[in-house]
Amino acid sequence: MNFPEWMQHIQQRTERALEHCLPSKDLAPQRLHDAMRYSVLEGGKRVRPLLCHASGAVFGANAEALDTVGCAVELIHAYSLTHDDMPAMDNDVLRRGKPTCHIEFDEATALLVGDALQTLAFRLLASPLPDISETQQLTMVQLLADAAGSRGMAGGQAIDLASVGKRLTVAELEFMHLHKTGALIRAAVLLGAMCSKADATALDALGRYANRIGLLFQVIDDILDIEADTATLGKTAGKDVDNNKPTFCTLLGVAGAKTLASELRQGALSTLAELEKSGGECTRLRELTDFIVDRRH
Amino acid sequence: MNFPEWMQHIQQRTERALEHCLPSKDLAPQRLHDAMRYSVLEGGKRVRPLLCHASGAVFGANAEALDTVGCAVELIHAYSLTHDDMPAMDNDVLRRGKPTCHIEFDEATALLVGDALQTLAFRLLASPLPDISETQQLTMVQLLADAAGSRGMAGGQAIDLASVGKRLTVAELEFMHLHKTGALIRAAVLLGAMCSKADATALDALGRYANRIGLLFQVIDDILDIEADTATLGKTAGKDVDNNKPTFCTLLGVAGAKTLASELRQGALSTLAELEKSGGECTRLRELTDFIVDRRH
Repeated sequence: MNFPEWMQHIQQRTERALEHCLPSKDLAPQRLHDAMRYSVLEGGKRVRPLLCHASGAVFGANAEALDTVGCAVELIHAYSLTHDDMPAMDNDVLRRGKPTCHIEFDEATALLVGDALQTLAFRLLASPLPDISETQQLTMVQLLADAAGSRGMAGGQAIDLASVGKRLTVAELEFMHLHKTGALIRAAVLLGAMCSKADATALDALGRYANRIGLLFQVIDDILDIEADTATLGKTAGKDVDNNKPTFCTLLGVAGAKTLASELRQGALSTLAELEKSGGECTRLRELTDFIVDRRH
Repeated sequence: MNFPEWMQHIQQRTERALEHCLPSKDLAPQRLHDAMRYSVLEGGKRVRPLLCHASGAVFGANAEALDTVGCAVELIHAYSLTHDDMPAMDNDVLRRGKPTCHIEFDEATALLVGDALQTLAFRLLASPLPDISETQQLTMVQLLADAAGSRGMAGGQAIDLASVGKRLTVAELEFMHLHKTGALIRAAVLLGAMCSKADATALDALGRYANRIGLLFQVIDDILDIEADTATLGKTAGKDVDNNKPTFCTLLGVAGAKTLASELRQGALSTLAELEKSGGECTRLRELTDFIVDRRH
């Protein structure tokens, strides 16, 4: 399978797994379940499940376990987007080319959708997983919770809110994004690897890879926010600059942001080279790194 | 120890355990951590941790495990109150005698506080617990997630929102409350018991006890909403009736609601009598049942 085929294959099986784990629209409360499915299905590049599968493949994880773990991370991501789009936070009306959840349904429903998606993520990660010990699974639940909580993603959002209109240093901006988007991307990479025989040294290297990839993802997002248009992005272009939010482009200029992206990409790839020396199979992770850099939305 | 002493003892150790598991105000992001502590500490009767400890005591659970499990349930409860009070939901300004989180801080912070408290609940329940196998612990994480999610508490809130201004039957109102408040109360009772040597028969009986207690708690709440004043309640009195929400009192009248409460109490106590026949020690659960009926706020 070449990379585009692999990516489509993982995206399709992730979609099926998400479809399967989300409650049916026919179950009460139907409107809530309808809105949960609306917020998760048929949208998104599924970058986190892709990272999960690519990272799991380094030391040969069970693909079904990776589906479940990838879904758990994606549900946390989807919950955070749903809450982030609400008027109290970013107040955005467009996401993945569709009206955001609180526009399509209502604010109270969007609030409950995010809440219930987070719960479902932990429900899923605590469900029986093939080839994984219960001890390991509890560690994985802890890891996802640490990545999502007040010292991870939710904390990053709080720092983001507090930084609107402020002039941050590049170090402060990196700190914010290492939490806001980086923590969950790191969790996707590590949880994928934890489904395999990756040892502590490998997990350490993958953690360093993930930190770079997480920042890289954000730097590219900031560049796209300026260079792409709303139709291509599927979300409102230029909104970070309009909202007076500090971005890598406002701090470094677009050219500087591109230099940083190139450095992060090199750093990520050299970490993968380390892993390959100890017998890891990093083809998919390397291709995915390039995909993150070269994407148009 | 008599009951008031026992209750105070459990409330104090719960407060210490919550204090300990919540991130310090000194840790970044400080405002978020401050708001999380504000929303959880120094407030509430801690009914769910009390139920956890009382239920665990039936077949002799480890008290430290019960502290952790009680905190996890209380954090889910606190998150749901924080989100429930927001303008998108109940739009309430007073809770436990203090301004609600979005009033004291702001809406975005309240949203993140709820999100992060839910995450912390699962983090805690996945942490090492004395005398409990990992298999059992994963089952407990699943149970808490089922109780909190779209087919439990969050689902009950969705049904509640959809029922404003409608005339429900008593059966529909019971269905709503069995989800909205009942599911988490049931989780508190069952998780407490799962820290002990309670067998499947005992868990079944405790589940039935918990369903009655959960409804009973709500019926009493509805009566207090009419009969008590705001100062005693620590939250806005009469707000359910003002919000045109169906309650047991609007459907059955206050006298009818009191009759229902009496029947539920009898049902709960007779389930406890069953448990005592198989060697369970139900003193605390019996006293707690009476406390729930006789409370003034």
